[in-house]
Amino acid sequence: MKPSAPPPSERSRVRRAEDRGHYDRETIHAIVDAAYLCHVSFVDQRGPLCLPTAAWRVDDHVLIHGSNGSQMMKSLAQGTPACLAITHLDGLVMARSAFSHSMNFRSVVVHGAFEPVPDADKEEMMHRLMDHLAPGRRLEARAPDRNELAATTVLRLPLFEAAAKIRAWGPKDKEEDLSWPVWAGVLPLAQVRQTPRAEACIPADIPTYVQAWAEQQPGPA
Amino acid sequence: MKPSAPPPSERSRVRRAEDRGHYDRETIHAIVDAAYLCHVSFVDQRGPLCLPTAAWRVDDHVLIHGSNGSQMMKSLAQGTPACLAITHLDGLVMARSAFSHSMNFRSVVVHGAFEPVPDADKEEMMHRLMDHLAPGRRLEARAPDRNELAATTVLRLPLFEAAAKIRAWGPKDKEEDLSWPVWAGVLPLAQVRQTPRAEACIPADIPTYVQAWAEQQPGPA
Repeated sequence: MKPSAPPPSERSRVRRAEDRGHYDRETIHAIVDAAYLCHVSFVDQRGPLCLPTAAWRVDDHVLIHGSNGSQMMKSLAQGTPACLAITHLDGLVMARSAFSHSMNFRSVVVHGAFEPVPDADKEEMMHRLMDHLAPGRRLEARAPDRNELAATTVLRLPLFEAAAKIRAWGPKDKEEDLSWPVWAGVLPLAQVRQTPRAEACIPADIPTYVQAWAEQQPGPA
Repeated sequence: MKPSAPPPSERSRVRRAEDRGHYDRETIHAIVDAAYLCHVSFVDQRGPLCLPTAAWRVDDHVLIHGSNGSQMMKSLAQGTPACLAITHLDGLVMARSAFSHSMNFRSVVVHGAFEPVPDADKEEMMHRLMDHLAPGRRLEARAPDRNELAATTVLRLPLFEAAAKIRAWGPKDKEEDLSWPVWAGVLPLAQVRQTPRAEACIPADIPTYVQAWAEQQPGPA
């Protein structure tokens, strides 16, 4: 696979195993859309931090949110330099030689600075998070009220300085190892949706979108 | 759940949703052991970075490895301040109110500095990675030779300044939202092992440990 777009910046260029790098919008969006969470790096008085948080995409931004009181939200809202990563692990790659073992994965790494979503857009952005988690549910759940929205910081990071990295194939052994008498292949891993578990007091009727969620098993793009 | 050990440092203390914080070794080890990869944050001339990489635990350290030529390995080998995170997403939590939606997860965040594993211990540490990926396979795969070991940097980070954070329950709605007429519960997610895929040229006999891998489905601790 050849990258169909050039790296947007030098620091976004995939340098190890360059053939796994992709910079086109479609590939990057697909990897972000397959995720429910990301890891965000930034630096505060504690040193470098790497924290997991919920993530969703709206157009050319990846969004995160949290309480106004969160130190992470406060630091990132100021536009402090940040890096965001999303990684899907798709398998363990068993080569003939220990050295050539690898993993299949799809990742996106984004450099940049977050900016706060303006108050006027916050409600719509939170609806979009719900659409990402459980399409259809925003019509039924109790909508956020003014106080809840006011207590929430929503931040967005442009998907501009972004690079995807993908490995999606079997082992690549050295020529001289190919005859080594050992099983070789891929041990595939997938994030699988399991049967929804209702709260004890909930009536037995499962709404269509909950049923649909469990029946739909998104895989690698 | 009450934490059974105190936070090892102020920056390791879980500050948002404190009741989800755990600092005991057993909880932290179980979350690290359930992972094949981590995200590592540090700062170089490119700014803060957040990069995914393979991870495994040996005693009270979490280990990573890479080519000597990797910029990440070079920076981290110098003991630059770092933060490592491992996150397992276990479910999407559907509350009655949009605001109370959440996720079930198990995460570990570690602060500190990596140090290189001494040359004399590198081979054993790489064996331990293989034991983590596919127990039994190290006896069959072509072992790393001297050049391969020399080309590999193995780094370890003490699991000392570490905090686990766990959410593993249903929605927690506000009292006044409990009667809202909407389905509520958990949409569970799990990383599932799928059927191993052999390379085309591999004989049909699947070794015991490959078969065992697919049949064993580790879940949340």
